[in-house]
Amino acid sequence: MYSDLNPGKRVLMGPGPSDVHPRVLKAMSTPLVGHLDPDFLTIMNETREMLREVFQTKNELTIALSGTGSAGMEASLVNLLEPGDKAVVCINGLFAERMADIVKRCGAEPIIIQADWGNIVESEQVKEVFEKNTKIKLLAIVHAETSTGVRQPLEEISRLTKEAGALFVVDAVTSLAGIPVEPDNWKIDAIYSGTQKCLSCPPGLSPVSFSEEATKSMAKRTSPIRSWYLDMQMLQSYWGKERFYHHTAPINMVYALREALRLVLEEGLEKRFQRHQLHSKALVEGLQAMGLKMVAPAQYRLPELNAVYIPEGIDDGTVRKALLNEYGIEIGGGLGKFKGKAWRIGLMGYSCSKANVTLFLSALENILQNNGYTVPEHGISAAAAFYKE
Amino acid sequence: MYSDLNPGKRVLMGPGPSDVHPRVLKAMSTPLVGHLDPDFLTIMNETREMLREVFQTKNELTIALSGTGSAGMEASLVNLLEPGDKAVVCINGLFAERMADIVKRCGAEPIIIQADWGNIVESEQVKEVFEKNTKIKLLAIVHAETSTGVRQPLEEISRLTKEAGALFVVDAVTSLAGIPVEPDNWKIDAIYSGTQKCLSCPPGLSPVSFSEEATKSMAKRTSPIRSWYLDMQMLQSYWGKERFYHHTAPINMVYALREALRLVLEEGLEKRFQRHQLHSKALVEGLQAMGLKMVAPAQYRLPELNAVYIPEGIDDGTVRKALLNEYGIEIGGGLGKFKGKAWRIGLMGYSCSKANVTLFLSALENILQNNGYTVPEHGISAAAAFYKE
Repeated sequence: MYSDLNPGKRVLMGPGPSDVHPRVLKAMSTPLVGHLDPDFLTIMNETREMLREVFQTKNELTIALSGTGSAGMEASLVNLLEPGDKAVVCINGLFAERMADIVKRCGAEPIIIQADWGNIVESEQVKEVFEKNTKIKLLAIVHAETSTGVRQPLEEISRLTKEAGALFVVDAVTSLAGIPVEPDNWKIDAIYSGTQKCLSCPPGLSPVSFSEEATKSMAKRTSPIRSWYLDMQMLQSYWGKERFYHHTAPINMVYALREALRLVLEEGLEKRFQRHQLHSKALVEGLQAMGLKMVAPAQYRLPELNAVYIPEGIDDGTVRKALLNEYGIEIGGGLGKFKGKAWRIGLMGYSCSKANVTLFLSALENILQNNGYTVPEHGISAAAAFYKE
Repeated sequence: MYSDLNPGKRVLMGPGPSDVHPRVLKAMSTPLVGHLDPDFLTIMNETREMLREVFQTKNELTIALSGTGSAGMEASLVNLLEPGDKAVVCINGLFAERMADIVKRCGAEPIIIQADWGNIVESEQVKEVFEKNTKIKLLAIVHAETSTGVRQPLEEISRLTKEAGALFVVDAVTSLAGIPVEPDNWKIDAIYSGTQKCLSCPPGLSPVSFSEEATKSMAKRTSPIRSWYLDMQMLQSYWGKERFYHHTAPINMVYALREALRLVLEEGLEKRFQRHQLHSKALVEGLQAMGLKMVAPAQYRLPELNAVYIPEGIDDGTVRKALLNEYGIEIGGGLGKFKGKAWRIGLMGYSCSKANVTLFLSALENILQNNGYTVPEHGISAAAAFYKE
């Protein structure tokens, strides 16, 4: 027979999931009502309204998909692309590569803009591509690259995309509720996120929002949407006034998301962004004092996902194993080109706190020293000095 | 500001979700570990093993998809079908119609076998189609039609399908853990279920199992699988020994499923099937005593989903509203052709009990009488007499 569920106690400081607030866990375990129950319809409506506030959008088609962030990525592309369409994909990390893969599965043709991992995509590159190509259906780009910790500026690329008459698709999986995300101001046509990052809700849902232009584009399709499960036109009727049954919503996940959104709005978006900035800066002060080097240039650094190079002579696995086994701390290893070369330290939502920064810097310093690395300066002292300012 | 989450108290006796055992809700609200944490990998492995036991299969590729039952349906078809393929779809209710829709979205050609709603598909019909058509890639059929309460016999249709060299795809959303489901004995190549029916776990995951033949068929594809999110080859590497990162698993949903599966195995499959039979029979005795008529013929009736005709002169909405508002009981209305004509009374998993049968029969009788209907005999008396036997 199988034992009671008893996973280890963790401090989640990786690339997501982040720690979940007890209020969210409690809301999630509320006994169920049916997915067409009047009470659940109210809960869905409230969740939609709060999602619009957190997304800072007026988009009617703003819902939570019944899948993780990757389902949001797939939904954004599969609903907008038809076979033969051309889609520009800006790649500077792992998650944009996934977008290009999905574009192909839609029968569309990806036009790739490549930038180095750890850097941003330059608007000049986008300009060139639009000059060389016509009839581009959409441009897809990642706002917060979870594989590199880079924040991609979007305004200028948006301007170029709209000028070329294309739709603007943005991955906000790791940015929503951690740094400003403004679909209406930035003229984004399709945007998706995940619940397990800066929203600090368990993984399982993907908040998405589509502009009126995107909705119109879907209505004009001549070929069927390749996914039934992620068909936004059907999902719109389920979440909308018609309440047309599509699939059984993951009821308790919606309970959890509703509570997570409440927590975000109670704190306030501005304060939440400032909190992420504050603790990330303290963490970076500490890491740099210890002689470590950040991956992303300062002006494009994500506060919620801090990628740092592993010091020369230090083994990735040894350190992460010690963090987990001795302190219960999870951080992320490098992905793709950064495997074994960088760590990814998350400070997302409920995980983003002075206590976590302090614990992590102490733990890391101790482990690095046990592995023969000498710190030029104490990380926690630098962080403490920064907090005092 | 939004209030605390406070949905009404319900007795879930509709077509799913069913009531969830407190142990499952408790397991679900356990604080998270990361989706690549060694502890979570153990939990995934245990969940797979238990899924195999509940599915009564040795299939290596047995996992829980990160979506609801409909995602399982889509995964089964999108991974096996390529553009131009022919797929036989047996339709005797709403959910099989959905299969035909998905077949088209895969670029394949559906060959429809139609049976009346409320009846089974006859193996003779299948035989004819296989005689008239060649090179059929798969046959898809629903084991337990949630829209009509019909149990579809599968053995003979399986034999005909395998004889024709086609793959056998079965929807077991409402049957798994409620009535016997035996993919290995019945030579099923792809089978999918949902968590919110007889497993009595919240909705959000779809247990699926693919045979070796299905796995080989996927490996031989010449066109890409149209869904990245539901790509079984990638998911196999994530759940398998490679542990290749695909997407972030819905961690707490897996916690919940693990506990729900433990409860099923603690009770034992045989006992669980008998329990569903017992309480369904008591319910049917009660309904018939009250003069109501069941939709499905006795030999093909699902114990977990009892579809019954609404008596002449009684308004569907009035009765269901009274059940919900006065007693907190949810039952399902009719779908499609049965809209306003039938009710669907679920006795699934944790909802399948003597207490629920008794409460429901009493409540229904009271409401029917309030609406001018005279029962020939008391439903609860008939049910009580049945239980005594």
